[in-house]
Amino acid sequence: MKDSSDLKVDLGLGVTAPQGFRSGAAAAGVKTLTEKPDVAVLVCDVPAQAAAVFTQNKVCAAPVTVSREHLAQAAGRMRGAVANSGNANACTGDQGLADAREMARLAAERLGCGAEQMLVASTGVIGRLLPMDKVRTGIEKACAALASGPQADAAFARAIMTTDTRPKQAGVRLAIAGRTVTVAGATKGVGMIAPNMATALAFLTTDAAAAAPVLARMLRRAADATYNCLTVDGHTSTNDTLLILASGLAMRGANGAAKSKTRLGEPVSEKSADGKRLAAAILAVCDSLAGQIAADAEGGTKVIEVRVTGAATGAEARRAAAAIANSPLVKTAFFGQDPNWGRIVSAAGYAGISSGPETMRLAMGNVVIFDKGRPVAADEAALKAVMAAHDIAVHLDLGAGRGEARYLTCDFSYDYVKINAEYTT
Amino acid sequence: MKDSSDLKVDLGLGVTAPQGFRSGAAAAGVKTLTEKPDVAVLVCDVPAQAAAVFTQNKVCAAPVTVSREHLAQAAGRMRGAVANSGNANACTGDQGLADAREMARLAAERLGCGAEQMLVASTGVIGRLLPMDKVRTGIEKACAALASGPQADAAFARAIMTTDTRPKQAGVRLAIAGRTVTVAGATKGVGMIAPNMATALAFLTTDAAAAAPVLARMLRRAADATYNCLTVDGHTSTNDTLLILASGLAMRGANGAAKSKTRLGEPVSEKSADGKRLAAAILAVCDSLAGQIAADAEGGTKVIEVRVTGAATGAEARRAAAAIANSPLVKTAFFGQDPNWGRIVSAAGYAGISSGPETMRLAMGNVVIFDKGRPVAADEAALKAVMAAHDIAVHLDLGAGRGEARYLTCDFSYDYVKINAEYTT
Repeated sequence: MKDSSDLKVDLGLGVTAPQGFRSGAAAAGVKTLTEKPDVAVLVCDVPAQAAAVFTQNKVCAAPVTVSREHLAQAAGRMRGAVANSGNANACTGDQGLADAREMARLAAERLGCGAEQMLVASTGVIGRLLPMDKVRTGIEKACAALASGPQADAAFARAIMTTDTRPKQAGVRLAIAGRTVTVAGATKGVGMIAPNMATALAFLTTDAAAAAPVLARMLRRAADATYNCLTVDGHTSTNDTLLILASGLAMRGANGAAKSKTRLGEPVSEKSADGKRLAAAILAVCDSLAGQIAADAEGGTKVIEVRVTGAATGAEARRAAAAIANSPLVKTAFFGQDPNWGRIVSAAGYAGISSGPETMRLAMGNVVIFDKGRPVAADEAALKAVMAAHDIAVHLDLGAGRGEARYLTCDFSYDYVKINAEYTT
Repeated sequence: MKDSSDLKVDLGLGVTAPQGFRSGAAAAGVKTLTEKPDVAVLVCDVPAQAAAVFTQNKVCAAPVTVSREHLAQAAGRMRGAVANSGNANACTGDQGLADAREMARLAAERLGCGAEQMLVASTGVIGRLLPMDKVRTGIEKACAALASGPQADAAFARAIMTTDTRPKQAGVRLAIAGRTVTVAGATKGVGMIAPNMATALAFLTTDAAAAAPVLARMLRRAADATYNCLTVDGHTSTNDTLLILASGLAMRGANGAAKSKTRLGEPVSEKSADGKRLAAAILAVCDSLAGQIAADAEGGTKVIEVRVTGAATGAEARRAAAAIANSPLVKTAFFGQDPNWGRIVSAAGYAGISSGPETMRLAMGNVVIFDKGRPVAADEAALKAVMAAHDIAVHLDLGAGRGEARYLTCDFSYDYVKINAEYTT
């Protein structure tokens, strides 16, 4: 989950940092027990190129269905997204679909665009109809509050939160065609987090110029390496949505850069050096946002990076890393700061790998504790220090090939049980 | 997990209830923190037909490897099993293999048989070499204590326990060829329990006469319907072993039953009515033992039966039931007595099923709460009563075909975290 480039991630940059974007938020009472903001609108002042990846759960929420439809109709001229927290609008049948469509239409009317130019996202309790009277008022208020800048960024990031304890945003700036381009985003999600396409909600914006199909491929690759390698509880949500809107506004005007092959006023070519930098920027933002989810995981006290190398295939590496990252036994051991490596190697063992323990090597931090099928007498003090840290790196080499994968997970604490046993349906 | 026949399960019957079996146990200090019994020996006084199913974990323990070898050599003349708790003898390399072989040899020497006639089973911490001095003394003592009867049964069931809070045994009596035949067994396991072949340790005995290959098929089918549909934490152990020894002693002598097609002195034919009754008896014992594991699951406060019907295929039903039974979100909701059905249907949704929510119907107990993709206004009081009970039946009909599956699981409590965060490696 490390940055794939030397791009510097700035947590002060949010969804309106790129040129052409405004956001607004409102407290509409969808979250019944608090008066926290729960409706958010993100707008691009010009038609934006757009792409998204959605949950692969067969039980997918109404806003996911509607966003898929709208993206198919208007990926090259999207104007924004409307979101609510506190209610997932999932398992709500035809009325749920009608409500998601109305959310898009209400926001579009206020913004003077077509309903199909708005994406829709919801997150919260499954199986309750949206309180549309409250949502309608919330969309009005959020549209009336549209603005740019750090305050608008923060308000947006807060309005999409559910059990998150803090807002999550990140951005990077890079140069393309002699201009400074920004890629930024906000995300939410701390539970019902498991890797299967985009997880949770994430809204990315950029003022780079790029065509929707190019953005789609860049976003898919970034999701595969970040959001899809993140797990809190192995439970893939019904509402997962990761979207990007590109205004192109940083790349208008006459060409001023001699070195760049990208011409101003034209979209970035995917295979050019500039295209690769833009892809790296999208990856860096997704990486930071996914890492922030792991760090704020429900009840989590630690962030654990599980790296599997030497697998017979990439798929085996991914399965082994996922099995380790999802095992409640592994996760409770980390909560207890116990270097219970038997749980780690046995989780790899049931993940459907073709190699056995005799070629395995396991390190916690830089302390090797299992090698070639046998325990290693490790430095107890060094191992204790590794287990006491907030961030822990686990590296399992299967010694069987070149397959690699990396997962982010958290530990499993009393508070995970508390939060999820007390969460009201 | 209900009995597949009208056979009456008797929890007073243990491993020595069938004719020809004795067991012994000893406290040898393998469990370092207690003086509880931790070495057990099970013996058949005549060569027994034997079969077993083992963990499919690629990281399998030394005793599993040795037992597989011995079964290949002597399935038709096995004499017993030697077991220890407190140390899994897993991930222990060549020394671990040598130690497992020595356990078999020591017991065999005391019993006057070949080492290959003994099966070996271990359970406990992964990755530590067995304290063989203690184990040797323990095997001596356990062999010296060999006896039949309720006390011997109880001592055996206790000696194989790890974090189990109570011993687990069950037996049934049935008539074959005019004789009373007994099938009985003991099991252990409350954590690192997930369905993939036999889970945990289970020792079955019978005095029916049946050939090893027939026993193997009967045991495999029983395991698939019971142990393999049981999950506590989704983590498949390195040591899982489910074995059966058949002395045939109840079916010696001259034929006395006019009605039975089974001739005394000959093994039961698999396809005969007697063969089916014996298979049903094995299933009933496995069913009871697996249920006792679910009821004693680490930290569990409830036993939850997840039934999935109407799936497009049996495999889809099984995947959906497993996803529901393994989801920490589902399990914490049950601990909180919260009928959070959104978590249940969304778990089915990510299990790789081909149907969607629009044909689903979900009932908790006899209260339908989700039907055809929409929430149902359920009787709140009835639902509350269902959720407050110790045993809860969940029935999800996918409305897409005839595939069915049933899983047993438990809830996820603070105590699961406590037990597994504090378990010492």
